[in-house]
Amino acid sequence: MPIVTIQITREGNKPGTTSVTAEEKAQLIEGVSHLLLDVLNKPLDATFVVIEEVDTENWGWGGLPLDAYRRQRRALKPG
Amino acid sequence: MPIVTIQITREGNKPGTTSVTAEEKAQLIEGVSHLLLDVLNKPLDATFVVIEEVDTENWGWGGLPLDAYRRQRRALKPG
Amino acid sequence: MPIVTIQITREGNKPGTTSVTAEEKAQLIEGVSHLLLDVLNKPLDATFVVIEEVDTENWGWGGLPLDAYRRQRRALKPG
Amino acid sequence: MPIVTIQITREGNKPGTTSVTAEEKAQLIEGVSHLLLDVLNKPLDATFVVIEEVDTENWGWGGLPLDAYRRQRRALKPG
Amino acid sequence: MPIVTIQITREGNKPGTTSVTAEEKAQLIEGVSHLLLDVLNKPLDATFVVIEEVDTENWGWGGLPLDAYRRQRRALKPG
Amino acid sequence: MPIVTIQITREGNKPGTTSVTAEEKAQLIEGVSHLLLDVLNKPLDATFVVIEEVDTENWGWGGLPLDAYRRQRRALKPG
Repeated sequence: MPIVTIQITREGNKPGTTSVTAEEKAQLIEGVSHLLLDVLNKPLDATFVVIEEVDTENWGWGGLPLDAYRRQRRALKPG
Repeated sequence: MPIVTIQITREGNKPGTTSVTAEEKAQLIEGVSHLLLDVLNKPLDATFVVIEEVDTENWGWGGLPLDAYRRQRRALKPG
Repeated sequence: MPIVTIQITREGNKPGTTSVTAEEKAQLIEGVSHLLLDVLNKPLDATFVVIEEVDTENWGWGGLPLDAYRRQRRALKPG
Repeated sequence: MPIVTIQITREGNKPGTTSVTAEEKAQLIEGVSHLLLDVLNKPLDATFVVIEEVDTENWGWGGLPLDAYRRQRRALKPG
Repeated sequence: MPIVTIQITREGNKPGTTSVTAEEKAQLIEGVSHLLLDVLNKPLDATFVVIEEVDTENWGWGGLPLDAYRRQRRALKPG
Repeated sequence: MPIVTIQITREGNKPGTTSVTAEEKAQLIEGVSHLLLDVLNKPLDATFVVIEEVDTENWGWGGLPLDAYRRQRRALKPG
């Protein structure tokens, strides 16, 4: 009866995508359910997975909304 | 001061509905708030309830997205 | 596949108890699972319930830890 | 590595707004990240903040959906 | 910046253990962090994982506390 | 009616402490409740705060349990 909650930003993660795709979500669900089977012997049908997509405006890191934080990190990187 | 979080899929649950209705949400809120009053003596206005609706594509069970899991279960059922 | 999370304080709720009892937890689990069956037609064995007990020191209300908030409310009550 | 989750209703909170603004979200993220730095010495870039906006229909208080609860409270207020 | 929350029961999962071991927890953390790297290109150090262990008395399934539910399932199994 | 959940590790954060103190928790509760009052006009007594302390063994970062991740970062730092 494990419950796995995966919180990610609502955006594309690979070139050519603008959102997390249904295929990527299926891979996350499959991967984490098998991980719990492998590590803790949890049967596949005893595991629930919930994927929560969060707008980047609603995600904070480094005291800033995510987009601002990413710009700051790029600006600070030695070039 | 209890907090109750109810996570359900974003879909209709009764014939003729395509989503959880406002009336059904009100029944969930009323029912669970009274349960905490009855079992633990918590005053109604000390209880918060949050209903989170999750797209079926974002819900995993049995290592599969929910729609695929349901198809699999139907296919396996003895007839 | 609903998931219900019930967050309550780790303390007794009825005279003569100093914590939430196993019996009270069973009543919460039974009550909320049947509520989801009644309101949304969710089968009992598709519902997970998680009860999280939180120390009163870790619970805030009114800008104060819970015990301080309760003292403040009692002091403010007209007598 | 703190994680702060802020759940609020999806509505305007000041005159002239009909939703939480990006500016208000940025202030929440900044404020809470600095609070964890000041109180617990957590570096800003070790703190994640997630803001979850919840429809008022999905928020319960006093055994009622939020809008109904607010109407009830206004009606009960002595005038 | 994904956040993964894994909720499991506080009990041993393999013969000879009476709780989830530190080694098993490390495997869960490693596995799920690499999954997010593989599927969504998330850098390892942008992912937080939180494992929440829940007493079996606080976990409900099938309308019953977990231990009672397991006894019921065993009793119902055809032999 | 905001709900703020603060997840932190169960450890001391300042010299001479081995855990988060009641005083530090009170400061977190006060600070975040006032932040919601200042930014979103939320009355203090409409805000709940829950502090969840997580064992370092149960917290993952960089694909590793937190203690291992911290050792790795110290080892990698230029000296």
